[in-house]
Amino acid sequence: LRVLRKVGFATDRAELCARLFADTSRDGVYSHGLNRFPRFIETIRNGIVDLQARPQMVDSHGAFERWDGRRGPGNLNAHECMSRAIALAREHGIGCVALRNTNHWMRGGSYGWQAADAGVIGICWTNTMPNLPPWGASEPRLGNNPLVIAVPRPEGHIVLDMAMSQFSYGTLELYRTRGEELPVIGGFDLDGNLTRDPGAIEASRRPLPIGYWKGSGLALMLDLLAAVLSV
Amino acid sequence: LRVLRKVGFATDRAELCARLFADTSRDGVYSHGLNRFPRFIETIRNGIVDLQARPQMVDSHGAFERWDGRRGPGNLNAHECMSRAIALAREHGIGCVALRNTNHWMRGGSYGWQAADAGVIGICWTNTMPNLPPWGASEPRLGNNPLVIAVPRPEGHIVLDMAMSQFSYGTLELYRTRGEELPVIGGFDLDGNLTRDPGAIEASRRPLPIGYWKGSGLALMLDLLAAVLSV
Repeated sequence: LRVLRKVGFATDRAELCARLFADTSRDGVYSHGLNRFPRFIETIRNGIVDLQARPQMVDSHGAFERWDGRRGPGNLNAHECMSRAIALAREHGIGCVALRNTNHWMRGGSYGWQAADAGVIGICWTNTMPNLPPWGASEPRLGNNPLVIAVPRPEGHIVLDMAMSQFSYGTLELYRTRGEELPVIGGFDLDGNLTRDPGAIEASRRPLPIGYWKGSGLALMLDLLAAVLSV
Repeated sequence: LRVLRKVGFATDRAELCARLFADTSRDGVYSHGLNRFPRFIETIRNGIVDLQARPQMVDSHGAFERWDGRRGPGNLNAHECMSRAIALAREHGIGCVALRNTNHWMRGGSYGWQAADAGVIGICWTNTMPNLPPWGASEPRLGNNPLVIAVPRPEGHIVLDMAMSQFSYGTLELYRTRGEELPVIGGFDLDGNLTRDPGAIEASRRPLPIGYWKGSGLALMLDLLAAVLSV
């Protein structure tokens, strides 16, 4: 919070931003929580993230709206757009907000929990950089896009938050930092052999999609949907 | 067409029903096309499918509607509800129809193509019988639920149609009938060993979910969403 205010965040935005990072680590998702905070501050300092930018609506089609993130902080942009999608769902029975021109949203699951806490079903995903080779290829052309589905329940929400590779880059990094092998084969090494060594997969940038051709296809569709809806 | 009219379908419904079966086989999805036609006729004869039943709207919440399939033919019910979802999307920017009390919709992809042919993005899925063990379990408690995502394009639509197991039961049947092994491991045999023998997986009813725990989680969420939205 102190660091966020020091780099220039207003108090309310600093509080929400800090909470999103802290909740992620509290929930045990160590790959997308406080560990990413130094890198996040760096993207503010080097100008990738414009911390003062607030998302703006571009156009509205009833229950579907397009928003421009104006290169603001990815987690605050995503949070504001999920708030808007919740409002649309309450008004129309279902709502959709597509957000472009934004930055890394950190843990996608945060916005699923946000929807479930508001008592509505939440479905969200994002595209990312090309970091996943399509099945049968060696060059990363797809995004290892995360998909989030959240269903609210009084006894505790049920939230799915998963990337399209068997292991996300965040999880690979986590295993490597711990010096552990992956529990199942996670991708190819630089020589093109299947491996459980997280560092070797980070080096080759050839993680395996879940279910081979199936995860590859699903990643392609999430990329396409994100692009078509947000532009 | 002759058979459908003989069992009692009106001409227009017989034509649509026949086309849905024939298009599936024409598109090369041999697991969910004409091969299932005799079984479909049997479910009409034994009363599981009420061929005269038309789906009815149960309630409406703007862009989201619930419909009752009244145990009618699954493919005709799904087609009519996708038509309604397309109309809702045109009116509200996005639309959703949840359908309960219906029968097997045969190829899920048919309704994705239907949406794309109408110039809109289509996303649909269904639950099914418990025929997929959750990851780490041996009893089938999840449904091997298919997920369909379709994006329209003038140069040819892009349609994903996939079940949550590495191979659908329809595909296992197809490989077994052809006397072929699966290209990758597809599940467990009756002794609990991983295998590429399609018949052994049909016998154990223990296909592998795509990406182990990930496909297992996604199948659970699709089950939940279908249940929560349609009831």
